[in-house]
Amino acid sequence: MAVRTIQWKNNRVIMLDQRLLPAREIYRKYRDYTGVAQAIRDMVIRGAPAIGVAAAMGVALGALWVRGKNFDREIERIFGTLQKTRPTAVNLFWALERMRRVYSEHRSQGIDAVKRRLKDEALKIYEEDIAANRELGKIGARFVRNASRVLTHCNAGALATAGYGTALGVVRAMKETGRNVEVLVNETRPFLQGARLTAWELGKDKIPVTLLTDNMVGYVMQKGKVDAVIVGADRIAANGDVANKIGTYGIAVLAERHHIPFYVAAPTSSIDLNCPSGSEIPIEQRNPREVSHIFNRAIAPRGVRIVNPAFDITQHELISAIITEKGVITPPFQHNIRNYVHHQ
Amino acid sequence: MAVRTIQWKNNRVIMLDQRLLPAREIYRKYRDYTGVAQAIRDMVIRGAPAIGVAAAMGVALGALWVRGKNFDREIERIFGTLQKTRPTAVNLFWALERMRRVYSEHRSQGIDAVKRRLKDEALKIYEEDIAANRELGKIGARFVRNASRVLTHCNAGALATAGYGTALGVVRAMKETGRNVEVLVNETRPFLQGARLTAWELGKDKIPVTLLTDNMVGYVMQKGKVDAVIVGADRIAANGDVANKIGTYGIAVLAERHHIPFYVAAPTSSIDLNCPSGSEIPIEQRNPREVSHIFNRAIAPRGVRIVNPAFDITQHELISAIITEKGVITPPFQHNIRNYVHHQ
Repeated sequence: MAVRTIQWKNNRVIMLDQRLLPAREIYRKYRDYTGVAQAIRDMVIRGAPAIGVAAAMGVALGALWVRGKNFDREIERIFGTLQKTRPTAVNLFWALERMRRVYSEHRSQGIDAVKRRLKDEALKIYEEDIAANRELGKIGARFVRNASRVLTHCNAGALATAGYGTALGVVRAMKETGRNVEVLVNETRPFLQGARLTAWELGKDKIPVTLLTDNMVGYVMQKGKVDAVIVGADRIAANGDVANKIGTYGIAVLAERHHIPFYVAAPTSSIDLNCPSGSEIPIEQRNPREVSHIFNRAIAPRGVRIVNPAFDITQHELISAIITEKGVITPPFQHNIRNYVHHQ
Repeated sequence: MAVRTIQWKNNRVIMLDQRLLPAREIYRKYRDYTGVAQAIRDMVIRGAPAIGVAAAMGVALGALWVRGKNFDREIERIFGTLQKTRPTAVNLFWALERMRRVYSEHRSQGIDAVKRRLKDEALKIYEEDIAANRELGKIGARFVRNASRVLTHCNAGALATAGYGTALGVVRAMKETGRNVEVLVNETRPFLQGARLTAWELGKDKIPVTLLTDNMVGYVMQKGKVDAVIVGADRIAANGDVANKIGTYGIAVLAERHHIPFYVAAPTSSIDLNCPSGSEIPIEQRNPREVSHIFNRAIAPRGVRIVNPAFDITQHELISAIITEKGVITPPFQHNIRNYVHHQ
């Protein structure tokens, strides 16, 4: 797999700038955590698992440069800055929580030791994410048996994770076991992750992909062109409600009407038992300019009011199953989901 | 109303070039029918009623320049060319049919007389469309009683008609009777009629408008921000199934789930009793480049497969009522629709 979403190299964090794909493949090098935080906010990197990895690496990177004086206060500032980058993907908070635990446990061993431990933990989160994706993919490919035409939304692929992908990990695993698989993907306005990222990374793997505008989902379902929907998740509540890229909810409603199974593929790090249901998940509202301008040119009259929620909530009743690296969670989610989460 | 979508002036047809809005307000002058046909194909003008008016004016314009020799054959060529411009909006065929009838009825009076009659008929179609819109608006505003937050799709406004609009005609009539009304509009990919045209023409009339991407409809409905959906139609089948801009079907399915009334506003010239149901309505597939490129820049990797249906079918069960200039058609449409169509 040629896609290197994020890497740790010579005490630098390197990210593929996803804002420029597919036109240009530019890697950005960050030497401080403020750059990493800015990259997360500006969506140089995006996708819940990838955001988690980036935040963990951000902490490790930031810690490297902190001198002895005020060490704890500086580390607090690093956590605080990274924590505020984006509100919806729970993997961000999950990864920072892991880093914080390592910090507390090893603080007494001295500054150099704790810096080393933080770096090791960030790399572990990175490695575990790839491993989880591969396992999730295998499990998903076995589970999604009678589907070859998969519709997905946004990008839940190698670019949204440390590598391999969640929804697209299932697709890749299907292909690796020799099955015919093709993907339909919505362009996913306003950031166009489907057109720019999913089409690009599937193309690299020679998996056939067809691009739609977001409003064509009903049409292709009416025409019988979709066997299953598989999407990622930014946060999964305790009752199985899922926050994912804006538009996911509408696709789930259409899938139900057309009796097409609707699957969510996500690592268990995306499950948040502290959110009883979707209504407790904070939804990020982003800059209106993402909607009003494309390639820096206005598509709407100046001054028009705009809403720009980055995510929506899909109620658990609309979800056929949640595919994780620990197994497939089926309804009733409220009851079953707890067995798949390591800690509370 | 400052919007002049199409005009007949000094034996020329003048159209506002809708491809350039809202950035530039450029009027194009056509002196021959081939230019008018090209303008319809290229969507200089669009919207079912406006296409009908443009085609009628195209015939009148073309006839003006035909010399005595081969008159009938040339007229046939004009009809044939205009007929092939776009397949879905039935108003095109309806208007050409009216022009053809005038031609047959007056052919015997000589070439000059028939040219005059064709021009008169085109202007009559134009005037009647505005009058129908105003009447439809009044009827709709009375009917849509408890709604002030109207969601619409694409542009069914002054720019889609000879003036005033169908779905937006209802909104305008609501405003003219002193009611509070605000509009939510989807940007409507790929051609962005919602962002470029609807937001622009409502802004001119100082009607508050909020712009969404197409995949945000479920979100705003979940948040309780929509009282009613009103859309236009490109063709209405005998059973009440409606062909309209791609994405309309998905909105109707979401409206049903949220118990939000879903109205279609269209002149009776959009009803086609020759189509028993939506599945007989031909759906235009347009150039993939409309999806893959924005402002002439690629948003997707080269060579990606693309579908680009311009319309979809909304089944009549999802439609609460059809608002026409002759009254409001309510279910059962199969039975009621016939009373509203003048001819068969």
